[in-house]
Amino acid sequence: MSRPGLILKLRCPDQPGIVAKIANYVAGHRGNLVEFNQFSDKLGAKFFARLEIETGDLDVEADDFIDGFGTLGRSMHADWHFRRLPYRMRTAVLVTKTDHCLNEILWRTQLGELPVEITSIIGNRPNCRPHAEHAGIPFFEIDMDADKDAGFAEIRRLIEEQNVELIVLARFMQILPDTFCRDFAGRIINIHHSFLPAFIGANPYQQAYQRGVKLIGATCHYVTADLDAGPIIEQEVERVHHFHTPTDLVRLGRNCERTAIARGIRYHVHDRTILDGHRAIVFPD
Amino acid sequence: MSRPGLILKLRCPDQPGIVAKIANYVAGHRGNLVEFNQFSDKLGAKFFARLEIETGDLDVEADDFIDGFGTLGRSMHADWHFRRLPYRMRTAVLVTKTDHCLNEILWRTQLGELPVEITSIIGNRPNCRPHAEHAGIPFFEIDMDADKDAGFAEIRRLIEEQNVELIVLARFMQILPDTFCRDFAGRIINIHHSFLPAFIGANPYQQAYQRGVKLIGATCHYVTADLDAGPIIEQEVERVHHFHTPTDLVRLGRNCERTAIARGIRYHVHDRTILDGHRAIVFPD
Amino acid sequence: MSRPGLILKLRCPDQPGIVAKIANYVAGHRGNLVEFNQFSDKLGAKFFARLEIETGDLDVEADDFIDGFGTLGRSMHADWHFRRLPYRMRTAVLVTKTDHCLNEILWRTQLGELPVEITSIIGNRPNCRPHAEHAGIPFFEIDMDADKDAGFAEIRRLIEEQNVELIVLARFMQILPDTFCRDFAGRIINIHHSFLPAFIGANPYQQAYQRGVKLIGATCHYVTADLDAGPIIEQEVERVHHFHTPTDLVRLGRNCERTAIARGIRYHVHDRTILDGHRAIVFPD
Amino acid sequence: MSRPGLILKLRCPDQPGIVAKIANYVAGHRGNLVEFNQFSDKLGAKFFARLEIETGDLDVEADDFIDGFGTLGRSMHADWHFRRLPYRMRTAVLVTKTDHCLNEILWRTQLGELPVEITSIIGNRPNCRPHAEHAGIPFFEIDMDADKDAGFAEIRRLIEEQNVELIVLARFMQILPDTFCRDFAGRIINIHHSFLPAFIGANPYQQAYQRGVKLIGATCHYVTADLDAGPIIEQEVERVHHFHTPTDLVRLGRNCERTAIARGIRYHVHDRTILDGHRAIVFPD
Repeated sequence: MSRPGLILKLRCPDQPGIVAKIANYVAGHRGNLVEFNQFSDKLGAKFFARLEIETGDLDVEADDFIDGFGTLGRSMHADWHFRRLPYRMRTAVLVTKTDHCLNEILWRTQLGELPVEITSIIGNRPNCRPHAEHAGIPFFEIDMDADKDAGFAEIRRLIEEQNVELIVLARFMQILPDTFCRDFAGRIINIHHSFLPAFIGANPYQQAYQRGVKLIGATCHYVTADLDAGPIIEQEVERVHHFHTPTDLVRLGRNCERTAIARGIRYHVHDRTILDGHRAIVFPD
Repeated sequence: MSRPGLILKLRCPDQPGIVAKIANYVAGHRGNLVEFNQFSDKLGAKFFARLEIETGDLDVEADDFIDGFGTLGRSMHADWHFRRLPYRMRTAVLVTKTDHCLNEILWRTQLGELPVEITSIIGNRPNCRPHAEHAGIPFFEIDMDADKDAGFAEIRRLIEEQNVELIVLARFMQILPDTFCRDFAGRIINIHHSFLPAFIGANPYQQAYQRGVKLIGATCHYVTADLDAGPIIEQEVERVHHFHTPTDLVRLGRNCERTAIARGIRYHVHDRTILDGHRAIVFPD
Repeated sequence: MSRPGLILKLRCPDQPGIVAKIANYVAGHRGNLVEFNQFSDKLGAKFFARLEIETGDLDVEADDFIDGFGTLGRSMHADWHFRRLPYRMRTAVLVTKTDHCLNEILWRTQLGELPVEITSIIGNRPNCRPHAEHAGIPFFEIDMDADKDAGFAEIRRLIEEQNVELIVLARFMQILPDTFCRDFAGRIINIHHSFLPAFIGANPYQQAYQRGVKLIGATCHYVTADLDAGPIIEQEVERVHHFHTPTDLVRLGRNCERTAIARGIRYHVHDRTILDGHRAIVFPD
Repeated sequence: MSRPGLILKLRCPDQPGIVAKIANYVAGHRGNLVEFNQFSDKLGAKFFARLEIETGDLDVEADDFIDGFGTLGRSMHADWHFRRLPYRMRTAVLVTKTDHCLNEILWRTQLGELPVEITSIIGNRPNCRPHAEHAGIPFFEIDMDADKDAGFAEIRRLIEEQNVELIVLARFMQILPDTFCRDFAGRIINIHHSFLPAFIGANPYQQAYQRGVKLIGATCHYVTADLDAGPIIEQEVERVHHFHTPTDLVRLGRNCERTAIARGIRYHVHDRTILDGHRAIVFPD
């Protein structure tokens, strides 16, 4: 949406009349609902919604519209979040050696598919520096081998200094400290190169080869302190055959990884994801 | 939904505050919105919605709730339709020789996946009679070879006599007369054994073989007087290779046909489809 | 292949000139190679092949052709197997309550897609008896609750008595004893209702729901004493969303299960699978 | 394959003993068959094969091995072609404005996935020049607006001067002259942004939107004088919904286009395709 607008994400206990209340608030201020997705989770007695609102005809300032929602939101015991449009999310991309996910992100960003502003590319290896330089994005090489704690402290410093809102692990081959995961909860997206929860941990393509699976996959998920167990945003698979070596699986898997991470980031930066414990609600576009 | 309820389908010009108005009407009578899908078609300036409403707590009779909606519906220049739940749609299945689509429909109906009541199976060949008998459904063999007009008149008579609401062409190898298509517009679903609009007309698998496509497909669509050009509800594809003969394509295509027709019927009988000219809005479940 | 013929499956250490040796043997006796699939596994230094041979013009009897191959086969340190065509494999289907996989197998068998002769349907619950009776196949209800060992002894007796060559576990909800797995190694096919190795064990759809995966799947595999860890023949997946309940996953998963088991059986009975430790070589058609 | 070797592609009338003859020739000179794909087309009475041969142990020079095959090849009335490995195919990429297919090709080439040497990028618009420059590949802007014949003459001159073996139309928005198609028959690969044969011609995504299809696709094919009707190498599809505008279809379609063109080129440069009239035999890896 290029016109001025708002995205509202909301999560609350399920209760009668929620949709009417929310829609009334929007219509009462002459907001124009462009898109309204909701999900009444009958099993969990929870309600989730995402609204995209054109605000050109609002009868109040957008700030007042946002403030005013608080009364309703609190009465519904909701968590909610407004985002002003147009918007580009400040994003740091963390990499190690392989560049295919980074490339995909850069390409889609340049094309305008991903509304992000990449503030920095941070690598614990120098391999991706040329990509960063070509794209005109600062590259920071951080040594994680000598002192891992110092490395993560440096990453944290960079991220905070640059007001980074989203951290993308684009095949970043380091396990994040628990505190890091907690402090940036819901703001770190990882791509795991397997169809989770199969093949957690190292060398999933080698594991997949040995297990003789007929489909390989990739999983884009939020990072939590529990390794490879965070809420899944997107998964993608590709068919493989007995004649594919582990090297072939790596090659074919790159397709899955690129697709899954691109969609996962897209859903996140468009506020199309809402966390629900171990699960992620996703309203795809 | 097994509890008493209503499904409301609605189509109207796009206008401010629609969602609020509809949701207010429902909430105002203590209806419980279980599911609310809508689509604001900005290109066509149209609005489409489907609501699933639990009515156990309604403050009026369901009939009055339905009647009362008229004032709002007319004010929005809407077309709308209410369905009372639970519901089983009276359905006639038309067949010729092959039985795979019929089998799929029977099996899913018995399993409770498709809320239909099959009133009759009508064939212009006797091949599917045993399936009908095993399922305890009346089978009518109609001769279309001697006098096609008389055949369709007989089909029409059966359908009207049995208050059939949905006519499924489950590989029925006869072209319907224009008047038949018009009189039952939006109530006839066909499965075409190609990925439409590719391979319109006869022998699509032979055509697909000759063209050397790498994916074959099937298309479930509403029938209009314009052959194979009605609004598409669902499509399914399967990968094929050079070594597949036309006979293999027929075999593999059956999988696509069964999946596409089962989903297409499901979406229709759950009122998850709304027609929009040559297109079908589908809110899948 | 409806004309008289042979299928040869072969597995041996990789070595120079294998293809020439095998092809020479066939051509030397005027066998007509209809299909010749092979796989040189460079990682494992093994060779696998499947040949489909029309034998109408053989210069010797088929028995002599088969016998004569022994000299070559032994010289290559091969394991090999000949199958005479046309062929229908004697197959027992084991079930519990759900019938969708059984239905799929019966339907495809009747259609001629699966060259099997179903000798018996064996259930530890009576639910599938009507299907068996309708198909004219003997149904044996075996009580597994009172005495599991006695139950499996009875199954074994039936299978041996009927010269069963293939045992299909079509959602048979009992864990097979190790000795049973070993005695029928390579001749038992199971469908597991998850995308293995994810969600091993009970209630995979419930597990999938809780994990919040975006794709569910089914796995057709050979049964070994190691639960859900036998060589995989085929896998199938379907996309799911946050609004799908565990009940929905069961419904959607049935599609995957039916497709995967039908293909898995097809590949096995056409001798398109060759075991290689924990993996299965599959030459699909 | 990085070790010295040969790829042999062959097409001939089907006849007894072909596999034995070919395999004997290879084994007779101590060639090591790494991969041997063949296809006996019973409908067309034709035989197709692709062999990958390690030549480290050949008892003759590779040239003599190739020459010597002629006697056998001619006796079988075959067309055949040898390729020496390792090999990088000299390739010209033709573009107009959009860069996603070009980007994909460049990225996969740099990664070593595509064994091509891109001799030049030729555009009838300047948009892709920066990509060429970043990749260190000569960019030639050819004006096609003023004089289309002169433009194609210039392209032909470049291609011949640079000994180009493969011409890739990576969203090149110009119709090639018939003579050009004929002169480079089997050496021009195009990506069409629809699931052919649906939506031939201009604006396929707009056509797809209006038709209301539920899957969109892309087709990689050899170019012939018959527009969009050349032999298909690869097709890819993606699911779409009613809420996707034509602009969304363009965005989603790019994924299909990139995947299909990358696979199509890969199959061609690895000699995994054999033309058979309007169809392409493809032995995928």
